[in-house]
Amino acid sequence: MAKPLSLDDLGEALSASPFHQFLGLRLLRAERGLVEITLPFREEFVADRDHAYLHGGVIASLADAAACFAVIASVGYDVPTIDLRIDYLRPASRGDLRALGRVIKSGRTLAVADAEIYNHDNAVIAVGRGLFSTKV
Amino acid sequence: MAKPLSLDDLGEALSASPFHQFLGLRLLRAERGLVEITLPFREEFVADRDHAYLHGGVIASLADAAACFAVIASVGYDVPTIDLRIDYLRPASRGDLRALGRVIKSGRTLAVADAEIYNHDNAVIAVGRGLFSTKV
Amino acid sequence: MAKPLSLDDLGEALSASPFHQFLGLRLLRAERGLVEITLPFREEFVADRDHAYLHGGVIASLADAAACFAVIASVGYDVPTIDLRIDYLRPASRGDLRALGRVIKSGRTLAVADAEIYNHDNAVIAVGRGLFSTKV
Amino acid sequence: MAKPLSLDDLGEALSASPFHQFLGLRLLRAERGLVEITLPFREEFVADRDHAYLHGGVIASLADAAACFAVIASVGYDVPTIDLRIDYLRPASRGDLRALGRVIKSGRTLAVADAEIYNHDNAVIAVGRGLFSTKV
Repeated sequence: MAKPLSLDDLGEALSASPFHQFLGLRLLRAERGLVEITLPFREEFVADRDHAYLHGGVIASLADAAACFAVIASVGYDVPTIDLRIDYLRPASRGDLRALGRVIKSGRTLAVADAEIYNHDNAVIAVGRGLFSTKV
Repeated sequence: MAKPLSLDDLGEALSASPFHQFLGLRLLRAERGLVEITLPFREEFVADRDHAYLHGGVIASLADAAACFAVIASVGYDVPTIDLRIDYLRPASRGDLRALGRVIKSGRTLAVADAEIYNHDNAVIAVGRGLFSTKV
Repeated sequence: MAKPLSLDDLGEALSASPFHQFLGLRLLRAERGLVEITLPFREEFVADRDHAYLHGGVIASLADAAACFAVIASVGYDVPTIDLRIDYLRPASRGDLRALGRVIKSGRTLAVADAEIYNHDNAVIAVGRGLFSTKV
Repeated sequence: MAKPLSLDDLGEALSASPFHQFLGLRLLRAERGLVEITLPFREEFVADRDHAYLHGGVIASLADAAACFAVIASVGYDVPTIDLRIDYLRPASRGDLRALGRVIKSGRTLAVADAEIYNHDNAVIAVGRGLFSTKV
């Protein structure tokens, strides 16, 4: 079985994706099956005319990355997302976001992982759950 | 009850969002409870090192926009996303995407809408379903 | 590749499950990737004190069976459910239900299928979407 | 605001439902926003010909009840399920199940709650997440 990537390796893998570069994702922490990722605010993330709230798609992208990298931090290789569900709990006003990704179950062919998205006041603004393919 | 926005109004509302501007979303068609939206390819959408596939977050963002605007095309005003689910059916290789958004049920407080995402070969690469708040 | 089961075979497979026998599920129609199933009303299905509405768990069970058997009607063998999502659109008042199951995508390892649940007035009361393992 | 029901009140509310009576659901524990419920094994719950595994619909019903009653234990009145998602992590072999329901967010109109389903060996066999209407 592949050994889990180091924090440096994982951070590099996260940044290797052009979309993650646009989002500005940065890996803060990685343990087996757990990661913490930040998304620094950008004007392009804003959803509405009044420039008050972040777009749900940005939050879904962060949730996908956090859940996915939690699995990568468990199995040690890249895993495609099979499905993803997001519950938006509060509007996300302008500011940085932070995501905690956590593996719920990791098996030989599938893994389930959760993501919690926090705003700059450390309130949970969304929760996500994703299914990933761990087949090599 | 508010009257549905015109295609021009809806197209403008779609483009008023800075994140939609980054994505380059364009409204192709709008009827009551149905919209068609394109996402022209950009290098920033790519997920992986090898620059072969679009990121799931981009696809989720397009699905959210399509389902959301299908509801807007039904109720006539902006509606926040409550939750969103995406099933990725095939890898989305480089190229433009197209989304069909369709209202399944629209009530006084909640609406459910579906999104189908097509690649440039008109194959469905993902399906999404969202719940939206229609309360005024 | 296994050949799809006949309507008789599928109906028998549906009834072989003790839980389906409790539910009283009956197969009305089966084509490749499409099934229609009925759930005749039983007092035990009722959710509330006032005996007015069917329980969401009964509706979820019917949706699971319909989506699952749509996949079975496509691949020709039993498939375990990996995940399931249900949107309840209207309260289901006392009476028989009918479900339409339809395959969205069937691949070598995974299949996605939808279910629509109708009440005795042919109104859609719920929609479901499930992911199934098609690996042999 | 209504005061949370007592454990006795909640247990009675749980059993008032004919479908819960069929399932044999019993409330073990209730705190604000948290409940624990058991489902004693019955032959009717079995999914397959070989009588080895419990049906996913039974597990979904238990998850719905646990998440729903966690919300009831927070708001103090009955709440309809808007949508529900279940991830099946392991086959549930014959035996009693136990569910933990936990409120994630409870607001004036909507609440999100999670359910974890354990088998008789205390292994998590499924996780669920539901959205409930808390509007009075």
